[in-house]
Parts: sequence; structure tokens; C-alpha cells
Amino acid sequence: MTRPKPISGFPEWMPPQRTIEQYVVDRIRNTFELYGFAPLETRAVEPLDQLLRKGETSKEVYVLRRLQAEEGATDDDSLGLHFDLTVPFARFVLENAGKLQFPFRRYQIQKVWRGERPQEGRYREFLQADIDVVDRDTLPFHYEAEMPLVVADALGGLPIPPIRIQVNNRKVCEGFYRGVGIGDPEAALRAVDKLDKIGPDRVAELLVETAGATQAQAKAALALAEISATDASFADAVRALGVEDPLLDEGLAELVRVVETANEVAPGLVIADLKIARGLDYYTGTVYETQLRGYERFGSICSGGRYDNLASTGTERFPGVGISIGVSRMLGLLFGHDALTISRSVPTCVLVAVPTEDDRPACDRTARALRSRGVPTEVAPTAAKYGKQIKYAERRGIPYVWFPGEPDTVKDIRSGEQVEADAATWQPPAEDLRPVVSGA
Amino acid sequence: MTRPKPISGFPEWMPPQRTIEQYVVDRIRNTFELYGFAPLETRAVEPLDQLLRKGETSKEVYVLRRLQAEEGATDDDSLGLHFDLTVPFARFVLENAGKLQFPFRRYQIQKVWRGERPQEGRYREFLQADIDVVDRDTLPFHYEAEMPLVVADALGGLPIPPIRIQVNNRKVCEGFYRGVGIGDPEAALRAVDKLDKIGPDRVAELLVETAGATQAQAKAALALAEISATDASFADAVRALGVEDPLLDEGLAELVRVVETANEVAPGLVIADLKIARGLDYYTGTVYETQLRGYERFGSICSGGRYDNLASTGTERFPGVGISIGVSRMLGLLFGHDALTISRSVPTCVLVAVPTEDDRPACDRTARALRSRGVPTEVAPTAAKYGKQIKYAERRGIPYVWFPGEPDTVKDIRSGEQVEADAATWQPPAEDLRPVVSGA
Repeated sequence: MTRPKPISGFPEWMPPQRTIEQYVVDRIRNTFELYGFAPLETRAVEPLDQLLRKGETSKEVYVLRRLQAEEGATDDDSLGLHFDLTVPFARFVLENAGKLQFPFRRYQIQKVWRGERPQEGRYREFLQADIDVVDRDTLPFHYEAEMPLVVADALGGLPIPPIRIQVNNRKVCEGFYRGVGIGDPEAALRAVDKLDKIGPDRVAELLVETAGATQAQAKAALALAEISATDASFADAVRALGVEDPLLDEGLAELVRVVETANEVAPGLVIADLKIARGLDYYTGTVYETQLRGYERFGSICSGGRYDNLASTGTERFPGVGISIGVSRMLGLLFGHDALTISRSVPTCVLVAVPTEDDRPACDRTARALRSRGVPTEVAPTAAKYGKQIKYAERRGIPYVWFPGEPDTVKDIRSGEQVEADAATWQPPAEDLRPVVSGA
Repeated sequence: MTRPKPISGFPEWMPPQRTIEQYVVDRIRNTFELYGFAPLETRAVEPLDQLLRKGETSKEVYVLRRLQAEEGATDDDSLGLHFDLTVPFARFVLENAGKLQFPFRRYQIQKVWRGERPQEGRYREFLQADIDVVDRDTLPFHYEAEMPLVVADALGGLPIPPIRIQVNNRKVCEGFYRGVGIGDPEAALRAVDKLDKIGPDRVAELLVETAGATQAQAKAALALAEISATDASFADAVRALGVEDPLLDEGLAELVRVVETANEVAPGLVIADLKIARGLDYYTGTVYETQLRGYERFGSICSGGRYDNLASTGTERFPGVGISIGVSRMLGLLFGHDALTISRSVPTCVLVAVPTEDDRPACDRTARALRSRGVPTEVAPTAAKYGKQIKYAERRGIPYVWFPGEPDTVKDIRSGEQVEADAATWQPPAEDLRPVVSGA
């Protein structure tokens, strides 16, 4: 076959980047578990009608077909790859409600797929790390204040730039729009959601065209969208606009609590930013977006919100709140700016050199002794000259080469230091045991 | 919406089973890294022509189509979901040969998809855990002896039944068939591969019909397939059949070495079983299948082999050897027989009870103090009566409930023992920190 080429939108990290990704995912997962979120994976496919329930993403779905499906068969034509983890989770909750304990806290770290047009240069396959809490009938508000703290804890321990989580509350927007008399609050939300992309003048036009707003109402909506603060003062700024509505009051009280809860634990983490709308129709309360400091122009790396009606049948309702870390998106940004490095390209800490092929069984025994105490160890591929075997280690960043002898010795090939060693007891310094991930 | 239903062939574990799966995958991954295998993930899709290069699996591919693709557009029509991790890996090696260090050792733990007919009751989405070693031009034989030892080490630490790895060598079969004069050794291999399914009489017929064998040749091939031994004695049994061929000699020498290497480290792990053929065309040396003791009738849970020609262009060749643990298949079997259990359904070790909603911030602080020392902690969802809060813990198997007070106390709700405790210093017994996975 000829040499294959990459497929646009389907990134593949080389092993050093994949090692970093695993390190990041391990940290995220461990943090999620510290907060009591239980692990879950859902299948990669959903019935197409499920995936198409929510408008904005419908055009990006990959549909599946069995290659050998009978002509005209439709069984698998109705399956598509999931484009996020929230819609599958809502489906899972409905399907298994009788077997779950509520409130149900789960995390889910999986690939998702979107059939983006290739020329847009966007990922078509990427890794997301989600947490959600759902409850039956009603969901306590305090979970909305918890989400940013979990994400901050998960990402805070990593050698990456600090994050800032922008929060808003749908009730603030909808109450305000209702208070000023805009006829179609959902259309207004969708218009304001485009503020960063198309600017205030065009949003004002959209508000008039699609949400039935007057010029004065559009101006008021834009005034609301301009408000932001890292403390509760944003609420005073909103009230100064003179709009009265009970839903607005409720939303402001909730948003104040999200900001103040965050400020008690992590000052500067959260900013109330009243232009944040999130395009998805299903949010009903707090919404989140997240900027990586220094990478603000690349958009959100973590977003979510409260949804009251996503998981519901005629008789049952499971309101929830969740947030999703865009792992591929975040790492793609950082890799693209050489902002993350790793100390070696393989897990291996020790390479056992092989004097002659007859010595290989003894070298294998040495490797087993080291591995049995948790030291990642390889045995050299061939009994080449020692210089070539050392090169094998150097090229991969393996720090130690073990030389069988009477006695055995082990050499730190970075410093050149070589000492006598016994495979049953020798231990490398803790920092050499595994590859170390560092920031730029 | 109405209550959704499961999709045949796409299993979804509940959180306790998913927790077990993660435990198993962590153990496998950690072992792979101890042997110096570097992590890799490839995209879920491959060009369809790549996936169809190998015959047997071609009918099981899921093809992708973008929902909004222009009518008649073919860009994504040529992508399919990968059905294993070997073909994508071979493609990755060819694509990135200039950036990799050879020999290249990688592991890869990912979902794969096969468009099986739903009525067969087989998985259409499942998790595989693969290791492979590839080299440029030539690959030392000793890696073929290493594969079973890595798998045994990975699975040996788990509370599952012991495994037995059945090994054979394509050179033994092909050399033997050539030695007795069977015209089409590949067709003969495919026929013998069906021995367990269709029995010796039908295999003999197939050998005559598809491989051009005479009755005597078919009988000889079946005599070879009947040989098995846990030590090198199988080679004498083969030689006693009186067939002479240099490839047969080479294969026997290799197979003896695989068996003897395993017997030095793990007696009983490996059995030379000369009926093992593996349907896939690309194997050229050692082949592996694996039985879980007590579950032999359910087939192989781990298989692979040496392939010399899978990754090659006209000018470059990257021979390799690999083995693949069928994680979903293995766990599906064990879950189906209630052979694996877990001590609780959530990661949470401590539930902090909430006396009144006004106390929630203080309860959150207690939880943070515990988490900061690695204790998975939740705060109760509402300030309900303590009896109801304790029920919340009981239903999930959370072992400890923390009661704020002067002083705080913590209760082991299994024993009823309650002691004074300080969130800054209290530590649960190590065995309670995380859910514990046990065998039946």
C-alpha cells in the first residue's frame, strides 16, 4: 500500500502527547471521583431521532450504515454517533431510572463525533470529560454552585494556564427580556449568543428581526449583555437598568450565590458575564463557559449548564446540571503552542542491556525483578554493541541503563553516574519512575 | 419522549460494572507500561479501502455518512469505524514511520465496532486492549515469546479465573501442509480454523473441497491439529508424523522456545495447541488464543500473533507481533456469571450529613478538607432528617457518615461505631478508601 495520509478533523497524538493526555485525564477522573461522581460510559451510538431532538447540532451528526446491510434495510440507518455526552446521559437516565439512586452523580469521559465540514478545520472526533447530577422531579440549586469548583479542582493541579469560568443564568436573561417586553426570549438568547462573533450592531438587528424587539428593547438587551463582574456587584448593575420581573429576581439571587460560593473557595475563578447565553435550547438555569487565560480568543474549553426538561417522559422528569471539559480542544490548543512537555516518550525507566543473546533469559529475570517493584523496564532488542544499546535508551529518554555483570551496575545516562546495583532492591528516585509532565 | 430501550449488541454497564471495568483496564494499562509499551490512540475511523484489505471482517464494517452531506457527495462515504486495533496501528506506523523510534512498542485500549447481524447476539461495540511491537525490516523473534508473559502479568493480578494461552505457529502448519503436499496452505488453515465449530469430519471435507487435499493429506492435517502439550514434547509428536519441511523445522523451533520461555516464568500458562489457526490472513509466525479457565466453551478472550506484511509499502516493511485482550468480552462473560463484585456503587467513602441548609457551607468545608487528603467525599443533597441522610449512604454502600457538631463525629454505618473526628486529620482504613473489586 502507499503511505497513508491524515484525515482532516481526526487528530492523532504521538505517544508523548498521548501520555500527557492520559496524565490530564487521570487527574480529571481522580478529582471527579473525589467528589463522589460514579463512572459511566454510554454506547457511541444513539437512535437518530434522539440525536435530532435538539436543533443546533443536527446538521453535524454522523449516520451509520452496515456495509453488508440488505439493500433497503433500515435497522442501522437510524443510528448515529453521539455528538456530546449530555444527550446520551439523559437517555441513559430515562432508560435506567428504575435501577439508579437519585440524585445520581456520574462522570463520563469519552470520544464524541461531529460531522463538521472538513474545510472549517474543526475537530470531528474529540474527547470530552463530563460531570452531571440529576435528580427525580426536583434538583437542589446548590449543585449549580458546585460544578465550577469541581472543574477548578480538576484542572488546577495541572501545569496549564489558570482558567476563568464565565457564568450566567438563563432566568436572568429570560426574566429581563420578559420584563422589557421582548416577545420571543429564546430567539433573543440565540441572537445575544452571537455577540462575540458578529458584534453588538448586528445582534441589535437580529433582536429586531428574529425576536420581535423594538430598538429600545434591543438596546436594553445589549446593556444587560455588557455587564460582568467577579463579585455580586453585577446584580446592582442589572437592577440599575430598572427592569422588574420575578424570574429575573430569582435568576439574580441564584447567580449571586454561584459567584459568592466560588469566591469563598477560589477567588477570581468565576466571573458573572451576562452575555454568556449558550446556544443549546435545553438550558434553564446557570450556564457556564470557560476561558484558558492567555487563550481567550480560542473560545471556551469547558461549558455546560442546568437543564430541567432534557430527561423527561410524560410522567417523569429528571432535572440536571452538568459541565463538560473539552479535553481534546484544550490539549490541542496547548500542544499547538508548545505549552506542555513530557520528560520522555516511553513509560520505560530502565533499559536492561543484553551482553549476548545467550544472556537474554538472565536479562529478562532482571527486568522482572525491577517490574515486580513497580519500575517500568524494557530489555534491549538485540545484543548489539553497548553504545548502540545506550543510543536506544537516549533516543527515547529512558534515564537508566542496567548492565549485567559481576556485580550488576546501573548507569544514569543523563549524568553518566554508574553504580553497583541489585535488581531485587535498587530503586530509582521517585521523580524518575514515570514520565513527568511540565508546562512550557 | 417515551422510555428508551437498549440497542442490541451495544452493551452499557451500570456504574458498579463500569467501576470494575476501569479497575481492570487500570491494571492492564499499568502492566503494559511496566513493560515499556507507550500509549497510543488512533482515530475511530479508517478509510474504507484500508478496512476492506483483509477479507474475513469486511462484511462487519460500519460505514459513516454525514447527515447533511451534499446529495451524492462521497468525501465521508469512504470512512468506516475500525473493527480492531491492529489494522489502524499498521496504518499509523506507515503514516508516521519517520517520527517513530523502532522497534516501537505501543499499547492501545479503545472501543472497536463490528456491524454484526443483531440476531447473532454478539457485541457490535466492545473494548479491546492491545500491545504490539513493530520493527523496521526485521523483528527479533524473542518478542513472540514475550507477548503471553505480559498478558499473564496483566490479568494475573485480577480476581478472575486463571487463563491458559494456546499457542501455535503458522510456519508449523504451512510447513507441514507443504511437506505433505497440500496445494493451498492458506485454504487449509481456514478449514482447520473451523475445527471446534464444525468437527473433524466436516473439516476433512473442506480440506478436500477448498484446499485441494487428498483424503490422506486431510487426515495428516487433522492429525497435526490434534497435537497439544504444555511442554516441548509436542515437537516430538509432530516429528512422529514423519513430515519433512524446512519451514516446519523453523516453526517447531520457535514454538518450542515460546513454550519453554513461558514455562520458566509461569508453568501451565501456555499450551502448544496445533489446531489454533486464527482466521486472519496476515499472521505469519506465532499465533495466540486464550481461554479463561471454567469458561472454555465461550471461546477466546485474548488473541493475536506475528504479522510480517501488514504494515508495508513497496519499499518499506514493518513486521510486528501483537496480542489483544477482549476486555468487554471477558467482563461480559464474568458479569453474566456474577463472577465479579464490587464493595459499593459510588467512589464516595464519606457522606457529610447536613444539619440545616445554613450549615451547608461548613459541610462543604469539611468535605474539602477530606478530599484534600484523598478521601472521596460527598455532601448530603438536602438537610433531611438524619435517618434519611444515612439511607442515602446505605443505598450506595458509602461506608462512613460524617456528623458536624461540637466536636464532629464520624460513623461507620456498617458496624454502627461512631467516633469523634477532625476533618483535617481523620483517615479511613486504606481498604475503605476506594471500592474494592472481588471475585465470586
